[in-house]
Amino acid sequence: MTYKHTHSCPIAQGLNIFGDKWMFLILREAFYGVSRFKDFQINTGIAKNLLTVRLNILVDEGIFEKVNIGDKGTRYVYQLTEKGRSLKIIVFAIFQWGNNHLYNIDDQPIVLLDRKNMQPIEPLQLRSIDGNVLQDEDILIIPGPGADIDTIDRFSPKHK
Amino acid sequence: MTYKHTHSCPIAQGLNIFGDKWMFLILREAFYGVSRFKDFQINTGIAKNLLTVRLNILVDEGIFEKVNIGDKGTRYVYQLTEKGRSLKIIVFAIFQWGNNHLYNIDDQPIVLLDRKNMQPIEPLQLRSIDGNVLQDEDILIIPGPGADIDTIDRFSPKHK
Repeated sequence: MTYKHTHSCPIAQGLNIFGDKWMFLILREAFYGVSRFKDFQINTGIAKNLLTVRLNILVDEGIFEKVNIGDKGTRYVYQLTEKGRSLKIIVFAIFQWGNNHLYNIDDQPIVLLDRKNMQPIEPLQLRSIDGNVLQDEDILIIPGPGADIDTIDRFSPKHK
Repeated sequence: MTYKHTHSCPIAQGLNIFGDKWMFLILREAFYGVSRFKDFQINTGIAKNLLTVRLNILVDEGIFEKVNIGDKGTRYVYQLTEKGRSLKIIVFAIFQWGNNHLYNIDDQPIVLLDRKNMQPIEPLQLRSIDGNVLQDEDILIIPGPGADIDTIDRFSPKHK
């Protein structure tokens, strides 16, 4: 967990937080309703020391809030913050890709259904702000207001 | 890269492939148009030996195809397969989350625009099969046809 990407990129900086084999299993558990250390540990199979390190990172990054729910003394649970809850899309993007590409449809271990009609939910798609599905050629990747010189040089439209 | 999750879960099995700090940077580069070993290496900052291992995994998993484009002799490029292209959603889910939660809006290094109206694309959302945005309470997580006994026990509706 020690190497850190230093370049300015939302993917690189995200991977500095959750780029390992465990983080999205811990987050999966949070979205499945788990909040206690012991349940994270049992349900993912992670070693206690590895879990401790990762929970501390998730708290430090503002993804989990460590809350004392003990009536007498202390008993901590880890609850997703708003920033943490917004990781749902990444968690379920991995979920959908894994189900669709690592399992046959007859062999998927777990599925997401729309409760209203008990149908599978739609595969995630990139859309315009007015809801139209976007293809690769519809999307432009350009330097943002905080772009460094490398990003400007690489992604400015004049260079495309 | 040696530890492997063994439990039957699309997220765990996905992380067995791409659960590290580098895989989604390599894949980012592929979606930015890169296909040559040297370009992957320069643009991500990864060491050559680490890149070699990861490209081999991505080829073995059917995410990249290694194609000889040499007119005379051999010159290989790595091209996304259909299975690989479908990782786009995860890559851009991380991209959107990183931009929205690790940068201020005035400081984002790189942005995705809809080419038609030059507006930011919509934040990814979970939707029903007929396109309605789903909230947490609209989604049911249930055992699939390939669920093992633990998954059945944990997620069967009678236990909820």
